[in-house]
Amino acid sequence: MIYPSPLEELILYFKKLPGVGEKSAERLALSFINFKKEDAESFSKAMVSAHQRLGKCSICSHLTDQEICNICGDNFREKNVICVVEDYKSVFTFEKVGKFTGVYHVLDGLISPIDGINPSDINIDALLDRCKKLDGNIELIIALKASVEGEATTMYINKMLEGENIKITRLSYGIPIGAEMDYLDTLTLERALKDRQTIS
Amino acid sequence: MIYPSPLEELILYFKKLPGVGEKSAERLALSFINFKKEDAESFSKAMVSAHQRLGKCSICSHLTDQEICNICGDNFREKNVICVVEDYKSVFTFEKVGKFTGVYHVLDGLISPIDGINPSDINIDALLDRCKKLDGNIELIIALKASVEGEATTMYINKMLEGENIKITRLSYGIPIGAEMDYLDTLTLERALKDRQTIS
Repeated sequence: MIYPSPLEELILYFKKLPGVGEKSAERLALSFINFKKEDAESFSKAMVSAHQRLGKCSICSHLTDQEICNICGDNFREKNVICVVEDYKSVFTFEKVGKFTGVYHVLDGLISPIDGINPSDINIDALLDRCKKLDGNIELIIALKASVEGEATTMYINKMLEGENIKITRLSYGIPIGAEMDYLDTLTLERALKDRQTIS
Repeated sequence: MIYPSPLEELILYFKKLPGVGEKSAERLALSFINFKKEDAESFSKAMVSAHQRLGKCSICSHLTDQEICNICGDNFREKNVICVVEDYKSVFTFEKVGKFTGVYHVLDGLISPIDGINPSDINIDALLDRCKKLDGNIELIIALKASVEGEATTMYINKMLEGENIKITRLSYGIPIGAEMDYLDTLTLERALKDRQTIS
């Protein structure tokens, strides 16, 4: 064994992180053991603390260390404009843009019959309940990825809310800003053509 | 604040690791909080444990969780062939190659007058003591990087051991295996030319 065992063990844990291979894990672990004592201990405490204290918002399932997340608890956000996302990472992405003034609903997955993921396995029922409790003028913005699973989930939500007085929209598909036309895949180009917008 | 505070704090710590920027730190922290409870706790414990238990070998200053490192404690290694390296990372690199059967001496730095690093600031005295305690037939292999600091350190060691019956060698400089000739810097090429080896 090349590494002393406590280092070996630490490397193994770093390797469990996404995108961290053998080489990076070694580099991270070796640099970590050079941290000042206080920093090393605080880092380790921050990990346990984050893991223990973070849970789901009881309204939208977004990640929070409280009963209700900052967004659902914010009186200035429009509670009847709900952006439906796959996971809490999407919420963070939207919040970084900072243009959305409504609230979110985190599905925690997408319907995928091929993987055995049914509507009951994701957080859809709570979404339907939420919509029923709101008094009219609701808009659901579906912000799911453009994939078979995203489409299936969108269709399911759409179908379940049929007849209710709810406006359902989805994000536009099209050319990403700054992308070279040559590198666009045919499906994206097809959607961009189909959803073309009138300029004048 | 976009992130709940325990997550925000964890991201800050991940950012202290080398090569981990804002984006990667977020990804690492978010993936960490999805770890199973046991894994999360063990990871954190492994960090504290590695940080507390790892220290320097009392002979060669290599990283170890014991008084004397595995290498110095190995009876099959030649104790009078000492490879002098800048830091313990180099030891791990050599050990991965697995061809070296001697022992190491970790300098923990290089002499650098410009940065105010003098011979007394690095682990050179212990090396000289070590050499004096061994009974003859000693080879010191200097394996320091080819830089001003590496050269200065090599010269210093060489000078301090002048007159002692010690063979001092250094790694060869030259063309890295597999490197394209076009990409070689002039200094490397110059050294490779100077140190050219006879084929027949």
